[in-house]
Amino acid sequence: MPTFSPTGSVRAVPPTRNLSELRGPDIASAIGSDSIMVQPLGAIEQHGPHLPFNTDLLIAERVATDAVSRVGRELDVWLLPPLAYTKSNEHAWAPGTIWLSATTLLAVLDDIGRCIAETRARKLVFFNGHGGNSALVGVANREIRLAHGLMTFLTHPGVPADQGGSSPESELGMGIHGGTDETSIMLHLAPELVDMDAATRNVPEHLADNRYVRFGGRVGFGWLSNDFGATGHIGDPTAATPERGAELYEGAVAAFCEALAEVRAFEFQP
Amino acid sequence: MPTFSPTGSVRAVPPTRNLSELRGPDIASAIGSDSIMVQPLGAIEQHGPHLPFNTDLLIAERVATDAVSRVGRELDVWLLPPLAYTKSNEHAWAPGTIWLSATTLLAVLDDIGRCIAETRARKLVFFNGHGGNSALVGVANREIRLAHGLMTFLTHPGVPADQGGSSPESELGMGIHGGTDETSIMLHLAPELVDMDAATRNVPEHLADNRYVRFGGRVGFGWLSNDFGATGHIGDPTAATPERGAELYEGAVAAFCEALAEVRAFEFQP
Amino acid sequence: MPTFSPTGSVRAVPPTRNLSELRGPDIASAIGSDSIMVQPLGAIEQHGPHLPFNTDLLIAERVATDAVSRVGRELDVWLLPPLAYTKSNEHAWAPGTIWLSATTLLAVLDDIGRCIAETRARKLVFFNGHGGNSALVGVANREIRLAHGLMTFLTHPGVPADQGGSSPESELGMGIHGGTDETSIMLHLAPELVDMDAATRNVPEHLADNRYVRFGGRVGFGWLSNDFGATGHIGDPTAATPERGAELYEGAVAAFCEALAEVRAFEFQP
Amino acid sequence: MPTFSPTGSVRAVPPTRNLSELRGPDIASAIGSDSIMVQPLGAIEQHGPHLPFNTDLLIAERVATDAVSRVGRELDVWLLPPLAYTKSNEHAWAPGTIWLSATTLLAVLDDIGRCIAETRARKLVFFNGHGGNSALVGVANREIRLAHGLMTFLTHPGVPADQGGSSPESELGMGIHGGTDETSIMLHLAPELVDMDAATRNVPEHLADNRYVRFGGRVGFGWLSNDFGATGHIGDPTAATPERGAELYEGAVAAFCEALAEVRAFEFQP
Amino acid sequence: MPTFSPTGSVRAVPPTRNLSELRGPDIASAIGSDSIMVQPLGAIEQHGPHLPFNTDLLIAERVATDAVSRVGRELDVWLLPPLAYTKSNEHAWAPGTIWLSATTLLAVLDDIGRCIAETRARKLVFFNGHGGNSALVGVANREIRLAHGLMTFLTHPGVPADQGGSSPESELGMGIHGGTDETSIMLHLAPELVDMDAATRNVPEHLADNRYVRFGGRVGFGWLSNDFGATGHIGDPTAATPERGAELYEGAVAAFCEALAEVRAFEFQP
Amino acid sequence: MPTFSPTGSVRAVPPTRNLSELRGPDIASAIGSDSIMVQPLGAIEQHGPHLPFNTDLLIAERVATDAVSRVGRELDVWLLPPLAYTKSNEHAWAPGTIWLSATTLLAVLDDIGRCIAETRARKLVFFNGHGGNSALVGVANREIRLAHGLMTFLTHPGVPADQGGSSPESELGMGIHGGTDETSIMLHLAPELVDMDAATRNVPEHLADNRYVRFGGRVGFGWLSNDFGATGHIGDPTAATPERGAELYEGAVAAFCEALAEVRAFEFQP
Repeated sequence: MPTFSPTGSVRAVPPTRNLSELRGPDIASAIGSDSIMVQPLGAIEQHGPHLPFNTDLLIAERVATDAVSRVGRELDVWLLPPLAYTKSNEHAWAPGTIWLSATTLLAVLDDIGRCIAETRARKLVFFNGHGGNSALVGVANREIRLAHGLMTFLTHPGVPADQGGSSPESELGMGIHGGTDETSIMLHLAPELVDMDAATRNVPEHLADNRYVRFGGRVGFGWLSNDFGATGHIGDPTAATPERGAELYEGAVAAFCEALAEVRAFEFQP
Repeated sequence: MPTFSPTGSVRAVPPTRNLSELRGPDIASAIGSDSIMVQPLGAIEQHGPHLPFNTDLLIAERVATDAVSRVGRELDVWLLPPLAYTKSNEHAWAPGTIWLSATTLLAVLDDIGRCIAETRARKLVFFNGHGGNSALVGVANREIRLAHGLMTFLTHPGVPADQGGSSPESELGMGIHGGTDETSIMLHLAPELVDMDAATRNVPEHLADNRYVRFGGRVGFGWLSNDFGATGHIGDPTAATPERGAELYEGAVAAFCEALAEVRAFEFQP
Repeated sequence: MPTFSPTGSVRAVPPTRNLSELRGPDIASAIGSDSIMVQPLGAIEQHGPHLPFNTDLLIAERVATDAVSRVGRELDVWLLPPLAYTKSNEHAWAPGTIWLSATTLLAVLDDIGRCIAETRARKLVFFNGHGGNSALVGVANREIRLAHGLMTFLTHPGVPADQGGSSPESELGMGIHGGTDETSIMLHLAPELVDMDAATRNVPEHLADNRYVRFGGRVGFGWLSNDFGATGHIGDPTAATPERGAELYEGAVAAFCEALAEVRAFEFQP
Repeated sequence: MPTFSPTGSVRAVPPTRNLSELRGPDIASAIGSDSIMVQPLGAIEQHGPHLPFNTDLLIAERVATDAVSRVGRELDVWLLPPLAYTKSNEHAWAPGTIWLSATTLLAVLDDIGRCIAETRARKLVFFNGHGGNSALVGVANREIRLAHGLMTFLTHPGVPADQGGSSPESELGMGIHGGTDETSIMLHLAPELVDMDAATRNVPEHLADNRYVRFGGRVGFGWLSNDFGATGHIGDPTAATPERGAELYEGAVAAFCEALAEVRAFEFQP
Repeated sequence: MPTFSPTGSVRAVPPTRNLSELRGPDIASAIGSDSIMVQPLGAIEQHGPHLPFNTDLLIAERVATDAVSRVGRELDVWLLPPLAYTKSNEHAWAPGTIWLSATTLLAVLDDIGRCIAETRARKLVFFNGHGGNSALVGVANREIRLAHGLMTFLTHPGVPADQGGSSPESELGMGIHGGTDETSIMLHLAPELVDMDAATRNVPEHLADNRYVRFGGRVGFGWLSNDFGATGHIGDPTAATPERGAELYEGAVAAFCEALAEVRAFEFQP
Repeated sequence: MPTFSPTGSVRAVPPTRNLSELRGPDIASAIGSDSIMVQPLGAIEQHGPHLPFNTDLLIAERVATDAVSRVGRELDVWLLPPLAYTKSNEHAWAPGTIWLSATTLLAVLDDIGRCIAETRARKLVFFNGHGGNSALVGVANREIRLAHGLMTFLTHPGVPADQGGSSPESELGMGIHGGTDETSIMLHLAPELVDMDAATRNVPEHLADNRYVRFGGRVGFGWLSNDFGATGHIGDPTAATPERGAELYEGAVAAFCEALAEVRAFEFQP
């Protein structure tokens, strides 16, 4: 993909969709007003006794990478290096969890937005593997839009069960963290990191009787993962299978590809 | 309701459900581990040419006051004075909007949580009239739970249309701000502040074609209210009626009463 | 009061002096370079065993409302919704007190100044019912003038006894908090919230012997309200009467009206 | 003054009243619960065309040093090194002014309080040569008392004219900055730094007609020193004389000595 | 490596040296008081026209991974996921650079330290690929030691040329950024990302005449990478070879392995 | 040195090299684009049982004053008042140490840079007597350069032993704090403040065996001064002599004079 540098000489932009693999002058050639930046957000946080700390990071990074490799060239999408550490303070009680405070993460996201706004790109997509980040990234998206003028987006590998997404029946809609779906995807992506022998069902069933105060209900509530028991996960990983994981994973990649196409076409006032 | 003070003398707690109308020593008598604090959140922000800046404040305060007057004594609910100013930076472009920055509001909410935790109350409910606050209060609820140990809740007079709530058909699900429902409630509560002559339908119809990038869709996005046109509202206020408003209002009060009953019964591990 | 909008059409600005009851486009019509914004500051803080937590809020709000209703139209004064929570950390020891930290309140005041500066108004008056805020608002007034260019003012319903104001003889000049005058005003405004049976005289008499280190003396000092005893008030509420309160209240309203006239005429270099 | 170290050996504490001239283990010997710490606060800010930038620093440091040398041993007072830079943002327009922001200075003062609280001393006196600091130090004094438990005090070489102090008649009470008194003291202390040829009278006479909005009046206001003209001072330095300066200086030292005696005796509940 | 869980059951800790691949309960088994945490620090910043933005990230991550795979089990070393974004504000002028502000990065590092201190590990090593971070990490290391009690360390793949390291003669000791050595390592690790055709020598030769003000000299100075020309690198990449890179790389891995052995043995007071 | 004021009159700039002794309008006359500002940085921190808390302040101030008095006029150098309090948190354990937090000091330095940038001067030199500040000032120098456009420099009275400087053999290169050299200089400058009877050798000899983890080694580490024993100093003050001190002091003044000459000539791209 030869392009012309400002000095007129032909410059070969490397055949990559990773922004960080470009070289300084490539930015002027490669990044334009239609370019879309994708910032994966992971987490290093306890996921119960059966899943590794890097579950959210691994899923977000893998889905994002696959999606960008499928549609990146066509839609002019660029992948940024993932944030491994985000806001996981619901797991602050669990050693091994490494989390940024809310104000730290807000500052990090603002810094990223400020820098992307220095390029010609106008669109920044946070691809968030950790549901605990959603509210804060929602805040940041408006902050960045106002402060730096970017169009900002937030989406997930799958809609979190407490944010409108579905969850298998055995979980009563509460596959919030380390449940059937997340465990299934991990069995598909990295079975060697999953310990199904340690998997147990942990569902706060009494919440299902509530009409208002429930996950995704009309009354939200602040919770910590040990509020619901000592294992740290919420959901039913025992029902997980790699087949289900493969299906969910493929759905996530496909959905993100479609979403990116919409992001590409998106204008506030077309 | 005579109670006994620590010194043994009988002390009359005033017959109020407003915490701020108590006197110093009343706290020890009146506030216990079952008490629920309700903090209304309003906003002073432009609501289009037809609604006043204090729309969200007025609705939140009125619904909260009515609900607490209905069930406050029974459920041991206490009303706090409303926050008029919150995070309305999507309307920063509109003179007359008075808004706190995200970090300021986070600090304010944390200060409130810190103070409530000095009483014996364990439950704090944010009753939020401004959808633009929801993400940030969601963040704060976890911060307060972790830092101050309270059980924290967030609910609204009505579920915002971009947060899972419904919206009349003429709005294509986009009665986000100053639309049919909000205008109807204002026609019911304070018709003298509504200028129906100035009401126009302003719906970004092209968003309805999107599967992902839409209000309440799988891809969230950061927006400012002038991204969708100069009038500053999003929705169809022309369809508003006081009758609809009365119905919505009564529904909001009733729903909040029911929600408070669930909050009262709520325990993480009953 | 019909005014002309920028587009030339006649637009009726509502007959209110509450800024927050205006609608978006009214700002351009109603607020001009002579407009004065009045921001009442209250407090929710213990006021001894005889007065309610909202004493400062109630007094500031009532005086400000009455004054603006008298002279608002003539002097082009606009009332903002009061801040209920301010800096009451001298009462941090008393459950039920809800206070913002110094840095939070500085941020809140700066946010307000920033927003008012978006209108055409040039003058912002903080009407402060809580003496414990005075120093911080003094700081903020300069910050806002420098950062946002507004002319900023600070005044009180009555001059606080430790800031140059008078105090009945029985208080030895120390009617700082919940004393004769404040209690009298409350007996006038809201007698149902006052418990005169619980009122006791609490005056740190030994301070009267000091020449320097005394309230309002040449040597200021940092104090907490429980430094002077467990009741939390400083002064002599037993001498309070509703008649005295009525007189003080009327004096406060009248003085604020006169002060607003001077604010209206004020220019740094006329 | 031989004292015993924890190890039992006799240790000679140096005959100094400057805390910073002690050596590490001296603290345990020399500083006790009756010790008073004096922190001078200066400023480096324009003082009009006739006075140097370090006017406030020089006066505060000299008065404090003289007072401590007179009564330090008797009253157990210790002098800290002065802060040259404080909050002078009213002179931000004038190159050569070096000022800390309000939040920076609050942090500096809190850091000082935190450190003094690590010693056995319980009393910290800010001796403030710059009236523009008074409000902020007033805030800090309460912050430090609450956070670190110290008793905190604030006083000045002379009561500032806008904070209740007097000012010669020719200044109409407005010798705020670089006026008769301050210039006189400088003629006494450092005549070589004063340029009387450049001294002019600069008094905003129209403020004298105000009943409320005036320096030290019932309505405070935020001002910058160039709000009142380009010279940057406010007052009448032309009336200054070294004799008046000598008298004022001696009065300042004497008053601070007396004030320190009261500080020494001060207890909240003796 | 079977270990015993607190409940006595045998639990297999996965054969990984990546902390984030462990599962929640593994922490108690796997991390002890001798464990060493290694946090790689990269950067996404312009590296001249010949090297990619991720140069520092790639080198730090590769060296750290290789070293830990060699000695991790023996020395009980655990690898953390790298920070891609750090403090690169010397390249703020160059679009594509993504950098955290100094205060943001300080907060991130403190957050990491706080979390590691929740495990039983006592030692945290920052392995820093970006010389521009060294000063700030030096600050953080003391902050973390004081606030969280960890022993903290900082080292680099190679000693930066401006921090005491050597640099080839053709660079006059100024191979600061994108010079011979860094380019050589990249030719070894990722030649496909290097564009040697774009490599030019850019050495500010006049600095070599200075005795004090020079890179690594007795007088440090604040610089931005475009202070020395528009290309953004400082050094002589034209002299780079993959052979040199291989040698430097192997030296870096070996040195880090040796350094980790010393870290393992390190005690302040053995 | 008569200069012309903007109004055309001749104005005598005082014969001082202390910026703070100038008067407001002198800045325009005296400070130009070649002017160099020197900001001494001291510390008030324990220096072992033999040296006073103000050791770093005294040395930095004295060397800076002497150097500026020698070359200030020739090189157009201006001395600023020293910062007594800086970042001494490695001595936080020792009462009497007064230190600013890292974020406070960063803010102070930024404030200074912001203010100097309001003059025509382009060069700011931090002359740092406390090695514990070096890393943070290194950070600040880049911050100030980027934010305020100044050329910023950092140097010391002597190169600290852990930052590349030498240290007598008896200290094994570890005369970090209160060792032979620092004590010698104090014996030269202020022998009355030194207690040689209390001087003991305190050298963590085991560090000398390390190849990497040692003061100034390839692996830096965060340390507190009590990590190496209870006395608080690190080095061998018993070898100190006033003669050595005189020689070191003179060397420091001479070196700073030479360094200032280089700073004067310094341009990024001459």
